[in-house]
Amino acid sequence: MTMIIKDFPAPGSNYSTSDLRQILRARPSTTIAELDPDATPGLPTEEDARKLTMAMGPELSAYQERLYAESKTESCQDRRVLVVLQGLDTSGKSGIVRHVFGLVDPQGVKIKAFKKPTKEELSHDFLWRINKAVPERGYIGIFDRSQYEDVLVVRVDELVPPEVWKQRFELINEFEKGLSDQGVTIIKCFLHISPQEQEARLLARLADPSKHWKYSRDDVTVRSKWYDYMAAYEDVLNLCNTDVAPWYVIPSNKKWYRNWAVASLLLDHLEEMSPQWPPADFDVAEQIEAVKNSLSYSANG
Amino acid sequence: MTMIIKDFPAPGSNYSTSDLRQILRARPSTTIAELDPDATPGLPTEEDARKLTMAMGPELSAYQERLYAESKTESCQDRRVLVVLQGLDTSGKSGIVRHVFGLVDPQGVKIKAFKKPTKEELSHDFLWRINKAVPERGYIGIFDRSQYEDVLVVRVDELVPPEVWKQRFELINEFEKGLSDQGVTIIKCFLHISPQEQEARLLARLADPSKHWKYSRDDVTVRSKWYDYMAAYEDVLNLCNTDVAPWYVIPSNKKWYRNWAVASLLLDHLEEMSPQWPPADFDVAEQIEAVKNSLSYSANG
Repeated sequence: MTMIIKDFPAPGSNYSTSDLRQILRARPSTTIAELDPDATPGLPTEEDARKLTMAMGPELSAYQERLYAESKTESCQDRRVLVVLQGLDTSGKSGIVRHVFGLVDPQGVKIKAFKKPTKEELSHDFLWRINKAVPERGYIGIFDRSQYEDVLVVRVDELVPPEVWKQRFELINEFEKGLSDQGVTIIKCFLHISPQEQEARLLARLADPSKHWKYSRDDVTVRSKWYDYMAAYEDVLNLCNTDVAPWYVIPSNKKWYRNWAVASLLLDHLEEMSPQWPPADFDVAEQIEAVKNSLSYSANG
Repeated sequence: MTMIIKDFPAPGSNYSTSDLRQILRARPSTTIAELDPDATPGLPTEEDARKLTMAMGPELSAYQERLYAESKTESCQDRRVLVVLQGLDTSGKSGIVRHVFGLVDPQGVKIKAFKKPTKEELSHDFLWRINKAVPERGYIGIFDRSQYEDVLVVRVDELVPPEVWKQRFELINEFEKGLSDQGVTIIKCFLHISPQEQEARLLARLADPSKHWKYSRDDVTVRSKWYDYMAAYEDVLNLCNTDVAPWYVIPSNKKWYRNWAVASLLLDHLEEMSPQWPPADFDVAEQIEAVKNSLSYSANG
């Protein structure tokens, strides 16, 4: 695994977080073997990454609050954010929720982890349960796994015939276009780790009794299909990488880089959205008087 | 407002967080005018409170993770926590969610804010929407407002006849007993502020354009019924204060005390629950071998 992500600037180069969107955006005809999961473009040290990620907390919180406030006005905007996290076991989906979205007021965040579909979910089309979980206006939503499982595990494990899953790339693009038209800013992150790193992380879980609950015998079965999954992910990155719902490839062998990169992408999108405090829908001076005169303290106070 | 909460130890006295449960627990025949919202029992300085609250973050997180892990086993336990936050406008319900529950992994927390009921909710009994929002096993749930609104605003604004709301105290006690029997640890917190403090907080909102979205003209109307609400709260504290679902009165004029007290109560309950890492349901040595042999890197890596 010595290849680097094409066009990545050398470590230490100067670039802003908006450059990061260009740098990490999946390229047409992406071949996953060409993407280095150890890369840390632009961030030479772990210490910097940790500090910078923490420092983004107040900024992310401020934007989240303004996004929420904006949605509360009568002439409200339907804007919201949806971050889609995909990646194989141990790639860090939960870690990102904890370390990045944990920086923001939990009241402004809606987390949905998609598990194996229930009987009820299976009796609907595959996008039914996804649509139900789309965040309301004003919120930052996070999908831990998503509609893409229906062209990943479903394809690899042959749960539906090829003609069914092949049709889904287009259905997903249409669905995401519809969300975008309705005010959803979509940020899709593929957390890219190497199979060697996964081995190390699974063995670390097995070595620590307090992590045994995270381990399942199925993890080995899924791992054994690594290259089938990579082929499926390549189709996802190439066929569902629209400008309204782009894929970013996050080199994720280094957890501190992964966290910094996702936080930076989120911050950059929020900056671009630039949510604004809504104007008062009341006369401020009048309400100040009303508050002062609303209660007499003499009775009980 | 010079009275202090009965039996509060003097500031600076030594006592543990488990004493705090005794100290803050609503007494039989509670009269709200006797409870001092400025009190800070046991915590003399703001600086200490802030430090101690932050220091509880890792402990709370560790317990939350164990509670979640415990629920994932096949012979699972149904244990979970439900924190109910009640208090008048500006008393700090949102602030507690942000500052206390924001310390914990957001994946382990389920927040439900109850607003004015929808048409669908009103077509069911008053506990229907509450029951739907009870946290799943392994989670820490937070109710921002709750079933108690149905004996507070509903009573004060005469939305149902007295014979209907009077019956609800018993219904709520039965409901909470049922939750407790099914593994829910219930912690109910009444955030107690003075009307003077509310005035100051509402005026602060009005003075700051970035806080105007939090203000509503209705706030003045509700505020004008302060003493009706206090009478309704006294009934709540006296009639629904069971050992399986106790009420704690949190003096909340000082935000730093309020946050510290709720964090301490949560931590104390989690310590008492003492959730444990579940044992592995697989042979560890066997799985280590399985991971090592599950994939050949030669093909593509």
